[in-house]
Amino acid sequence: MNWLEEVRFDGNGLVPVIAQDADSGRVLMVAWANAGALAETAVTGQAVYFSRSRGKLWRKGEESGHRQRIREIRLDCDGDVVLYRVEQAGGIACHTGRASCFYRLLEGGQWQAIDPVLKDPELIYRK
Amino acid sequence: MNWLEEVRFDGNGLVPVIAQDADSGRVLMVAWANAGALAETAVTGQAVYFSRSRGKLWRKGEESGHRQRIREIRLDCDGDVVLYRVEQAGGIACHTGRASCFYRLLEGGQWQAIDPVLKDPELIYRK
Repeated sequence: MNWLEEVRFDGNGLVPVIAQDADSGRVLMVAWANAGALAETAVTGQAVYFSRSRGKLWRKGEESGHRQRIREIRLDCDGDVVLYRVEQAGGIACHTGRASCFYRLLEGGQWQAIDPVLKDPELIYRK
Repeated sequence: MNWLEEVRFDGNGLVPVIAQDADSGRVLMVAWANAGALAETAVTGQAVYFSRSRGKLWRKGEESGHRQRIREIRLDCDGDVVLYRVEQAGGIACHTGRASCFYRLLEGGQWQAIDPVLKDPELIYRK
């Protein structure tokens, strides 16, 4: 059986993917993948997602240079969440210029942005 | 502003939650929470989810004893994914008796269950 058949995609043919830094263990981001994105990720060893807003494959780092080299691809017990364990180029996964998208901590009844901006997003995304 | 108002719940009033072992960094599981589950988690310091199948709050470990003590609650940049960083009681998060639900690794074109069963699920869930 093809490994893709064991992934339980949702009604839109998508599955959520967690990207985790394989070295630091940090949870970097969550995005979506379709079967094509998973297949390309497995073949190329570079993280590919499906951008719902743009309606097409999203080769992470294509624009920003912040590619994610795949160390492992894992699937959970229900088959409906995928985990990419990656090496994060530039140490920045988030579009805000931070290492991780999970930079807000609940503290004192408020979300506090506790992680530093490592690079100005305008410098990341300009051509 | 109440911190719960900054969480972008979906049309069903739910948000996906990643549970991560705060010590080992392992991604343990993904489940759902509603506002009530998040609020109770924040107040009690024990991970609470919302079980879609049972339609009610799921106090993780209630039955299995495998509670998750909260070390941190984080929110991602879009506000639509929550991260619980936890201390996992018994070192087992998955209903299969494994440390993590992400025990299947893509290897040689197949999902391989590479992590050991630490405890027989029948022993975990019998009363």
